[in-house]
Amino acid sequence: MGKLNFINGIVIIGAGNVATHLSIALKKHNFQIRCVYSRSKSSAKELSVKLGVDFTTEFDYIPKDADLYIIAVKDDALVNVIKNLTIENAPIVHTAGSISIDIFQGLYKEYGVLYPLQTFSKSRDLDFSKIPICIEANNKKLENKLLELAHCLSKNVKLVSSEKRKKLHLSAVFACNFVNHMYVAATELLADEDVSFETLKPLIKETALKAVESDPYKAQTGPAVRNDQNIIQKHIEMLKEYPEFQKIYSFVSDSIYKLNQKKNK
Amino acid sequence: MGKLNFINGIVIIGAGNVATHLSIALKKHNFQIRCVYSRSKSSAKELSVKLGVDFTTEFDYIPKDADLYIIAVKDDALVNVIKNLTIENAPIVHTAGSISIDIFQGLYKEYGVLYPLQTFSKSRDLDFSKIPICIEANNKKLENKLLELAHCLSKNVKLVSSEKRKKLHLSAVFACNFVNHMYVAATELLADEDVSFETLKPLIKETALKAVESDPYKAQTGPAVRNDQNIIQKHIEMLKEYPEFQKIYSFVSDSIYKLNQKKNK
Repeated sequence: MGKLNFINGIVIIGAGNVATHLSIALKKHNFQIRCVYSRSKSSAKELSVKLGVDFTTEFDYIPKDADLYIIAVKDDALVNVIKNLTIENAPIVHTAGSISIDIFQGLYKEYGVLYPLQTFSKSRDLDFSKIPICIEANNKKLENKLLELAHCLSKNVKLVSSEKRKKLHLSAVFACNFVNHMYVAATELLADEDVSFETLKPLIKETALKAVESDPYKAQTGPAVRNDQNIIQKHIEMLKEYPEFQKIYSFVSDSIYKLNQKKNK
Repeated sequence: MGKLNFINGIVIIGAGNVATHLSIALKKHNFQIRCVYSRSKSSAKELSVKLGVDFTTEFDYIPKDADLYIIAVKDDALVNVIKNLTIENAPIVHTAGSISIDIFQGLYKEYGVLYPLQTFSKSRDLDFSKIPICIEANNKKLENKLLELAHCLSKNVKLVSSEKRKKLHLSAVFACNFVNHMYVAATELLADEDVSFETLKPLIKETALKAVESDPYKAQTGPAVRNDQNIIQKHIEMLKEYPEFQKIYSFVSDSIYKLNQKKNK
């Protein structure tokens, strides 16, 4: 595909989980990474070594003539980065699920969003070709450029507006962050027992695969969907030393039951 | 292994998800299934065809001389089944996570529990050898018999007391039933959008694999663990038409933050 649109290379702002995975995927597909910026020298250096490129911790040392600037920093650092960059004329994108494209408005000419919907850890390999990438841009030229780039990385590329992306991000909080907290709660509840989290692993895998391969509505089982108050009350009693989990138990059980009632109407 | 301990065969009481998977696994390992009982004729027949054995919907027609009776019915049907069976002298087990072994006390001589910790659907194939099986019995002879049987089916067999099994079951409610409800909530939130649950599938798989292959504590990401109140408040506002999910969002976020604070102390 037309990497000639990116002959002056891509600058990566950030050196965390998303920046690392995204820049490595770009390099793998022969995009030229010009340089990595991070305010943390150790992170910047670590990623620059992986990519075989320069790094900087100073905004002023970021090359001004790259073809694209990708900001992959924590949400609360984004405003600061956008204010401090001095590259008004080059296309710039962020990678945040819940932040509007309008954050660039009035500050840059060409801007957009490239949001890879996945949970990234530096230590875990991922098949980038399966990661959904949501694209948005403030003009057609950049939109096409970003689509072209994203299609090189993934088979699953969509144009998604800021409003829709925010909803997708909220859904992802439930499907990823909250799911993980359920795993953590399960682990905590077993902490005093000699049966460990290990024992739950086949169940965790099958629960995810069942939802993904069939339908999470049909996959719902357990005391709440049966409204088995006998078990539910015993469980709530068992959770008396875990007030947070007790609240979660009540509200999630309630929500499971109500949703099921609604669907079966 | 010594299937001679089971020459008179095994009677399966129940024809639901657990009964189906368990009896098929037993047959696969050359255990003789004598007959299937279910109060539902269609379910009993369906499973009996799969197993190539007789079925009955009448307690009186259940053979009295089998080597083992396995009750795999819904929790709230268990008491009724135990009362109506007339096989006082043969070993009998149930397969329920949250029900004590004592449910058999005074009614049977030899009894126990064989609890396979997994979420079962008739329509999904499972590798039974990876499913943890929790065993409990009221005497050593039956305990050994159940261990022997369970070891034929699975590489992961444990002796687990009723108290510990109840805790394991409660953990499983979080790791399976509640996790699935998070998937359902994510799907509901996308219902009005043209981005579908499909888009979340790579995220769901990776979230489960990350927790299983590393550590759910380390895997926790998202606005709650960062205590990013800006995003959290926006999300709560976005959920105003979903009061149940709004409550879940608040309490789970709260629990994530508090647990993280505690762990980092």
